[in-house]
Order: sequence, then structure tokens, then C-alpha cells
Amino acid sequence: MSAGQNPLHNPLDRRLPRIAGPSGLVIFGVTGDLARKKLLPAVYDLTNRGLLPPGFGLTGFARRDWNADHFAQVTKEAVQAHARTPFRERVWKQLEAGIRFVPGEFDDDAAFERLADTVAELDRERGTGGNHAFYLSVPPSSFPLVCQQLAESGLSQSKPGAWRRVVIEKPFGHDLASARELNDVVSQVFPSDSVFRIDHYLGKETVQNLLAMRFANQLFEPVWNANYVDHVQITMAEDIGIGSRAGYYDGIGAARDVIQNHLLQLLALTAMEEPVSFDAASLRAEKEKVLSAVVRPRDLGRHTARGQYAAGWQAGEKVLGYHDEDGIPASSTTETYAAIRLDVDTRRWAGVPFYLRAGKRLGRRVTEIAVVFKRAPHLPFALSATQELGQNAIVIRVQPDEGVTLRFGAKVPGTAMEVRDVTMDFGYGHAFTESSPEAYERLILDVLLGDPPLFPHHREVELSWEILDPIIDYWERHGRPDAYRPGTWGPESADAMLARDGRIWRRP
Amino acid sequence: MSAGQNPLHNPLDRRLPRIAGPSGLVIFGVTGDLARKKLLPAVYDLTNRGLLPPGFGLTGFARRDWNADHFAQVTKEAVQAHARTPFRERVWKQLEAGIRFVPGEFDDDAAFERLADTVAELDRERGTGGNHAFYLSVPPSSFPLVCQQLAESGLSQSKPGAWRRVVIEKPFGHDLASARELNDVVSQVFPSDSVFRIDHYLGKETVQNLLAMRFANQLFEPVWNANYVDHVQITMAEDIGIGSRAGYYDGIGAARDVIQNHLLQLLALTAMEEPVSFDAASLRAEKEKVLSAVVRPRDLGRHTARGQYAAGWQAGEKVLGYHDEDGIPASSTTETYAAIRLDVDTRRWAGVPFYLRAGKRLGRRVTEIAVVFKRAPHLPFALSATQELGQNAIVIRVQPDEGVTLRFGAKVPGTAMEVRDVTMDFGYGHAFTESSPEAYERLILDVLLGDPPLFPHHREVELSWEILDPIIDYWERHGRPDAYRPGTWGPESADAMLARDGRIWRRP
Repeated sequence: MSAGQNPLHNPLDRRLPRIAGPSGLVIFGVTGDLARKKLLPAVYDLTNRGLLPPGFGLTGFARRDWNADHFAQVTKEAVQAHARTPFRERVWKQLEAGIRFVPGEFDDDAAFERLADTVAELDRERGTGGNHAFYLSVPPSSFPLVCQQLAESGLSQSKPGAWRRVVIEKPFGHDLASARELNDVVSQVFPSDSVFRIDHYLGKETVQNLLAMRFANQLFEPVWNANYVDHVQITMAEDIGIGSRAGYYDGIGAARDVIQNHLLQLLALTAMEEPVSFDAASLRAEKEKVLSAVVRPRDLGRHTARGQYAAGWQAGEKVLGYHDEDGIPASSTTETYAAIRLDVDTRRWAGVPFYLRAGKRLGRRVTEIAVVFKRAPHLPFALSATQELGQNAIVIRVQPDEGVTLRFGAKVPGTAMEVRDVTMDFGYGHAFTESSPEAYERLILDVLLGDPPLFPHHREVELSWEILDPIIDYWERHGRPDAYRPGTWGPESADAMLARDGRIWRRP
Repeated sequence: MSAGQNPLHNPLDRRLPRIAGPSGLVIFGVTGDLARKKLLPAVYDLTNRGLLPPGFGLTGFARRDWNADHFAQVTKEAVQAHARTPFRERVWKQLEAGIRFVPGEFDDDAAFERLADTVAELDRERGTGGNHAFYLSVPPSSFPLVCQQLAESGLSQSKPGAWRRVVIEKPFGHDLASARELNDVVSQVFPSDSVFRIDHYLGKETVQNLLAMRFANQLFEPVWNANYVDHVQITMAEDIGIGSRAGYYDGIGAARDVIQNHLLQLLALTAMEEPVSFDAASLRAEKEKVLSAVVRPRDLGRHTARGQYAAGWQAGEKVLGYHDEDGIPASSTTETYAAIRLDVDTRRWAGVPFYLRAGKRLGRRVTEIAVVFKRAPHLPFALSATQELGQNAIVIRVQPDEGVTLRFGAKVPGTAMEVRDVTMDFGYGHAFTESSPEAYERLILDVLLGDPPLFPHHREVELSWEILDPIIDYWERHGRPDAYRPGTWGPESADAMLARDGRIWRRP
């Protein structure tokens, strides 16, 4: 157990709020959108909830010519615009007292010297105890340089009884080789248990609810296997296009952007066996077992599909096609829609396909896991009575409107026997008066506490690329993505892919 | 297959509306509450829905000095006050044309001759084809006399290619011996497949939905057994007292009044194996297997409880105790609350207690079947995380607000892991635009169609009394019912009865 870590064995198992010990957070790229909309408000919300120490230090690092006062003002505006909890002057004063700013370029040794001084000053004046987390809200191309500077300035070195941690955001590389390179760079500077890879999807309540639902209940686990499950559909649909993200998105595409991380993590959580406990090592072991057991279809042409959105109309507005977006070359073969069939070769899941799909400009914004059950082995009804009956399904709605939906067959009122699909719903928003903390609140607190169960380990990242690389290679060697109309559910080839298996996509 | 029966094999399996062939209905006791509030409106609703033949005959028999016109007027008023579907003059005219009335006492041979003439006249003038059902909405003590008269006047005799049927209402006796006597009387006049015992609970949509839910889905049946189910609670609670029914109720009590018929039928439908089809014989075979396998607890003192409501307050009103009700002697030991543990000794249910309870002046009016699941065999959570977690349950709500509720554990929003019970609901009223026909519509139509799957057979009645008789005997030999306060959930002895098994009653 490293210093600063919470002394209880099972970090997810405590009901009392977990409060971070003496510590500070340094954000690189603090002038970016993510910092302004998510990170700074989350730090305030944690302060407001009493989960950060009174002397908490918040340091911004960026090439702007700001000082601490100006950064404090920027932070205050970000908090007032985006924080989840009410603005309280007393709380703000407490947070403001720990705010620092260091201007500089990433290749400026002197700037990192100043940062080291600032951190040391926080230890002296605010009692941050030598415990500091470095949040790299910067492009992956800058990771090597920033890590190197953190090492050379001595900032990455923890003193006895204290800790230094680094936080990195996806993308974790763009294929297996680059992911390994990236990991090599980071791991030369920070030991493996001090590296926190943020996948903000895994901070979502529903993902944790998936663990609670599967393992705190008696009702679902008995049918959560190949005896009863026909297939699983994991969907992440967006109704927007790439917007201003052309520079990031082109050459990356839907598979690298979200399937590699979010969707394969959801697959792992859905398919994994019960972990011994919810500590990081146990959870990671189970997720890795699933990812190791994932098998790609042999015929990638028949069991994958990809698309690019065309120009058209969506929600009453004329929208650009992918090729017409600013900064996208006409020759681009980057997919804005990807669908993949994967199998999980375990005793529990053999023969149960997992269909993953992700795309932009689809019918509506929704992320869900649908566990679709086999038809009952026998129905003592006339065919005509059940012809409108689909398959039972448990749908875990990740966003929006987080919750669970159960689809089953019920008799239609009337004198004849006719069975039709109905649903029952559980909605987080309706069931609990507690409001859900933002994913970033949870994740930043976990970094400060040293609780890593929700963070993907480098080995999981590698396994995900091992699954995806051959598919992306195949696509690069075989033609172009199929066009699809905005507001639809992807190209016809995606429907054909499921039709070959005798199945259809959900229209969520 | 007898004449007039619908030619399709499986009567519950058709989606097209089933329309009765040429026929008439004779109601004995037509001046009573049941006829006015339920039977006559149901006949109108069936006519309105086009499910009765245009020449349908409706004959009232009672000792009043009425004629057909007056009876038609009474019927019209009953329809306008109580029918489910809108009043339409054209439909009423069609029904009215077939209305007849025969005044007379049950011991008046001449009256039955007149009834025979009326029925023959309907055959000639309205084309009822010799098909007539006799609805005995009269006290059981009159059954022998009415049956004898129907035999002697020749009314019970069906002509070739036509049918005669008799409909009787619970109570089907007050113990095994009297039930057999009653059956002997009826069966000397009508063959077994022409006797329709009405249990209006079995006309309820939710009971049929129970069949659809269990056997049209894949999701529930795998856990519907002793491996996963801890126990079952079947509750029929009323919030009213006996009202003006002292004459009927005293000496009968809760066990005879509703456990013998409604609750044991619900138990049979919950516990039975999948029938080969939903025809009467297959369904009855499965229900009889369950009732034959029911085992009473050895120690009836420990595993049953009974009570009598005391005077007190309910819903802000002062209410009488059972002993203070009009017509109840102070010495009465009739129970207004009864709770019984039964076991079903089959492979599916061995070791799973079925707790049945029924009572008046309880907390609220509700009938439900709650299948309560075992706790998960292992929870990978800290004890504190799950201390507010109950057992999973599937609750079939029979009335009011028919539907299904599923109770399971979900994570409470927040940064720590805490699991709490939540529910998801399916409500008939919300899910379907179709409104539910009244139970009596369904049942009367089934009588005219000759479809008996929802009617309990005499053998089921016998088996139910075999289960109940020793319990009622035991009670008669052991003291008096315990008093309970109005608006509560019964006497303390009922809670103690479950506490001995380490369980608690639901507070529905």
C-alpha cells in the first residue's frame, strides 16, 4: 500500500464519504476546453462537498501570460458557469487561497523549475505534504516532453511517505505499437501504480451500477450467460457531427475514438466474472480475462461495417457531410460509424456474439448495453398469439437518462390471448434524491485517494488494441466507408451484417 | 368437442375476437346486487363489442311481479349506471328485443314450465338454437331446488347439436363434505363439462398475464424455482369491514371466503409447471398437480394465524369492531384475517414456503403475488455497502393498478459504493391503450363459447377443501382469533408466525 492511500482494503466498499488527504493538483493545458468545462468545476464541487483538504493546492500550467489572480478569475468564471453544486463564497475563498499559476512552454526548463518551486511553496504554506498529481490535459504528442521535464525537474520523484501521480486522458495511442511507446515514455518516469488513465465513461454512475446490478442481486446473474443470452449489443450513438474536432478526428475515426476504450471497457464489465473484490487488481484481472478471451470474426468483411455520414437533414436542419466539414480532405477514409462483431470464448459466453457500434450523426444520442435473451425454448401459445413478441432484453442505459429497462412479453388486455412486448423502467434520476456527481469529480477524487479501480490499466489498453488493430488494418486495405444519411442508424452494410446472423439492431 | 364449442383446439390462443354462436342466458336471482352491478352490464358490454349474436336472449327469473318491459327498464338502468362501454341506443335496442322475464318461486313447478315456454319461444323467434346457459346467482342453499326444477321441467336437457349449461358462483360448499354434496346435486342434472364454476378472480387480466409472463418469456422461468426463490407471499387485503354481509360472512370467515378459492387458485397458477396447452384439461391437470402436492405444516399452531378486527380508527373514521357489526353475535369466533403457511412438495418448490394471507380492515386494498428471491450466494461488497439491501422480488399486482413490479438492488449515486433497493414497474393501465374488459364479460362469454380454461373444476374445489379443512378444524378446537386494530396488517401472531421462519410480511 503506497503512502496517502486510504487504509481500508476495498475502496469501493465504504459508505462514508472518502476525503482526500493533504494534496495538490497541477493541470497542464489549463486553458483548454476540458479544464474550463469539467476539471476546474469538478475541483470546486469536490471542495464544496468537503472532500478535499482545506489546504488543497490547485496549480495551472500553460503558455499564457497569466498570473495566479488571473487564473483564479478564470477558474471562478468556469465554476460559476459549469459547477454542479451551488456557488458559495466561503468555499470559493478556501479553494482560491490554494490557486497558483505557472506560465511557460513545455520545453522551457526554467518554467518547470518555477513549477517545482511553486509545489514546494504549497507544501510549506498550504500543507500539501509533498503529495501532487499532474493532470496532462494536453495532446498525446506532448506527453513525452512533459514527462521528461517532470523527471528532470525532480517533480515526478515522491519523497518518503508522500506521492506523485500522473493523469493521462485517452487516446492511449492510435494502435498497439504507439500505445506501447506512449506507455514506455510514461513508465520511465512514473511507476505503474502512479499512472492514472482517465476514461471518463468509467466514472459514470451506470457503469458502477452495472457492477452493483450484476453482483448485488440474485435475479440477473442466473440468466447472464450463454444458456439464456442470445447476443449483446453495445451502442454509443451521437447525433452531432465532428464539429470543430476535424484535426483530432480525421485519421482516428469511430473505432479508435470510442470502441477501443469506452465500448471494449463496457464489454469487459458486462462479460466479466465476479471479481474477488472491487479493488483495482481484482477488477483488472477479470476485465483482462475477458479482453484476452475476445475473438475477432474470421471474415472481417462480413462481420464488420463502417460508414461516413453524408450531407443531409437532421432534426430539421441542413447538415454537412463528413467530407464537407472544415479541415477534412475529400480523400479521407476515416469512418464516422463503426460496427464490429466480437465473440468471447469463455464457458459463460461461447456462442454469444457481442455487437459493438459507435457513430456520429445517428438517430439520437444514446449509450446503452442491451443484453438480448433467447426466445423461450417452447411457447405454449398459438403462433398468432405471439407474433408481435420480440426477445426479452435487459438494457442498461448509460446516457442520457441513466437507468435500466427490462423488456418482456405481457398479455394484451382483451378476451383473446395475445402477447406483446412491454417494458419496465428504472431511472436513476427518479429513484434517488441524491444527484449524481460528475464523472470527473469521482475520477479526480480517486486520483487523489490513490484508488484506481475505475482506471484502465496499460495491459487493458494493449489488449484492446490487439483486438482492434487487425480490423482497422483490414479496413485500410479494403475500399472506403459506406455513406449514410444523417439521422439514420448508420449504413445499410451495418444492417446487412446483423441480418447475416439473423438479427437486427435495436433502434434505441 | 361438444356442440356449440368453438372449433379451434386451443381457446386462449386466438387473436381474433371470439363471437358467441346462437344462444341465450337465463339469470336466476336477477334482482340481486350482482346481477344489477355486474351481470347485466357485462351482457350489454359484450353486445356492444359485437361478441353476442344479434338474436341473443336474456331472461330474468325472480319472485318479483315484473314483466319483460319492467325487467328491460331495470336492465337499462343497470347498464347506464354500470356498463364499461358507452351506451348506444342501437345496441340497446338489439339487446332489448331479446329480453324476457319469468316471475316465480323456485318451488313453483308452473313457473319453470313458463320458463321452458319462454326459452322455446326464444328459439323460435330469436333463433337462440336451443343453446341456453342458466346462471344461478342465488344462495347455495337454493342450488338443489333450482337444479331439480331445471331437470323436471326438461330445461337441463340439451337437444341434439345444442347445449345447456349451468353457472354457479362461490362458495362451492363450506367444507369438503358439503362441496361434494353440492357437486352431487349439480352433477345429477348437468354433465361435468356443462358446469361452470365462476371465480371472478380468474377472469382478471393479471391472472392471465401471469400465464403469459411465466410462459411467453425466457427471463423469468429460469429463476422460478427453489434454487433461486426463497418464499412466496400471496396477499388479498381489504380495507373495508364486512359491511352488510354479516349473514353471509359469520361462520364462514376469511379462509373459506377467499383462501379456499382465490388464493389457492393463485398459488396453483404461480407454482404449476408449463401446461401442454392452455385448454381446460391441460391447465386443470397442472393446477391439480400443484394442489395435490400441497403440504400443510405439521404444527398448525405455529404456522397459521387468525384475527378478528377490533373497533378503532381507519382513514380518519371511527369504525366498528367485528363483534359490534350488525348481526354478529358477541361469541363469534369467525376470523376476519387468516394467514397460512403451505409447502408444495415438488422438485421445483421443495423447501419454498408459500405464505397466504387474507383479511378485512387491513392497511389498504391490495391483492398481489410476491415471489421473493434468496439473497445472492455471495456479495463482493462490504457489509456496510449492502445493509439497506433486501431480497430481490417479482411482485404480480392483481389489484388495484394491475401490473408487475420488480425489486432489485442498485447503487446509490455518489462516490462511495452503497447498494439500496429500487423498483421497476410495469402497469397494465399505462402500457396498453386497450382497456381491460370486466372479469364478468370474459367469463360470461366463455360460458357461451363453452371455453372452460378459466373455471375451476370440481376436483380443484375438493383438493382446496382437503387442504383447508384440517386447518379450520384446528382453529375451531383452539381458542379464538386474536384481535387486531383496523388499518394495521393483522394480528401480532401473524408477524410472529413469519418471524419464526426468519421472514417478514411485505407491507404492500
